[in-house]
Amino acid sequence: MSNARTGASIDAAEFIKSQIRTVPDWPQAGVQFRDITPLLQRPKTLRMLTDLLVERYVEAKLDYVAGLDARGFIIAPIIAYELNVGFIPIRKIGKLPFRTVSESYELEYGSATVEIHEDACRAGDRVVIVDDLIATGGTMMAGKKLLERLGATVVEGAAIIDLPDLGGSKLLRENGLPLYTITEFSGH
Amino acid sequence: MSNARTGASIDAAEFIKSQIRTVPDWPQAGVQFRDITPLLQRPKTLRMLTDLLVERYVEAKLDYVAGLDARGFIIAPIIAYELNVGFIPIRKIGKLPFRTVSESYELEYGSATVEIHEDACRAGDRVVIVDDLIATGGTMMAGKKLLERLGATVVEGAAIIDLPDLGGSKLLRENGLPLYTITEFSGH
Repeated sequence: MSNARTGASIDAAEFIKSQIRTVPDWPQAGVQFRDITPLLQRPKTLRMLTDLLVERYVEAKLDYVAGLDARGFIIAPIIAYELNVGFIPIRKIGKLPFRTVSESYELEYGSATVEIHEDACRAGDRVVIVDDLIATGGTMMAGKKLLERLGATVVEGAAIIDLPDLGGSKLLRENGLPLYTITEFSGH
Repeated sequence: MSNARTGASIDAAEFIKSQIRTVPDWPQAGVQFRDITPLLQRPKTLRMLTDLLVERYVEAKLDYVAGLDARGFIIAPIIAYELNVGFIPIRKIGKLPFRTVSESYELEYGSATVEIHEDACRAGDRVVIVDDLIATGGTMMAGKKLLERLGATVVEGAAIIDLPDLGGSKLLRENGLPLYTITEFSGH
């Protein structure tokens, strides 16, 4: 039995969701933070969530899996390793040592910038972007633009958690990025 | 044939070293930055360096692999996944949402603080700490202290690169942390 929208096994997705810890009022009052560290801590859930993504892309003929700094770095490289493709870090500004291209995006207050090495991939490469969570979608969208500026095709964005009420997943899909998320939480 | 000190296959270690990019004068004049992104980008080297660590610990009866924020997050979770143990993130201050314990350490100018969730592991757990590079050893030492405050046994520290001239690997070994590094660079 599978979820029509995400394609994930409902049993696996529900179990994964049940192991996510909600931390109230973090990082600020009124926010319910969805903490994935219990998923990573337990071998069963680490393997379950990784294998959902590996199975999803095993025949996708990817060239790279890109991860978003820093929680995306935890899952994306496992997928790359298992698929025998390369891993690309997309980092906060000032962290990558070689020549970069950068992309800024708006936050609730102010803006943020992410970067990619200009030789991270080449025209025609097929890439999936992985992060832990889709909130406003700003970082994922910036990552898509960076990869596209290098000529790559962003096949899909993937995350463990979607927060649909924040509108990011809708925005990303409307801007031409298919998304795969394992589970979702309503509310902020 | 293997290196007497590190135990790594010389052929594999030399090949991995040959694929590390040196970026001159980054992040400041006079520093030769050792950039691991080409290793991650290429499936062969991503697998080679990961498999050296997986083989190293496959019979070590670990409970967790801990990774240091943020480049340690790229390699540590693959090792955890392959060994079927949990992954523990050790993060810069202010990034972990649940109750934490923290440890500060000196930098050349000022200090830095890292944190771990107080329920990240339990007394008696066996943990390896993974990072990309050992420079002054400050973060790795702070990570060891954090895990020990939770009662864990830190079996070893592991990194791709050692910069022995910065003294970190010597300091860590003198303070009771066995270290495994795949390759090293002399000079800063």
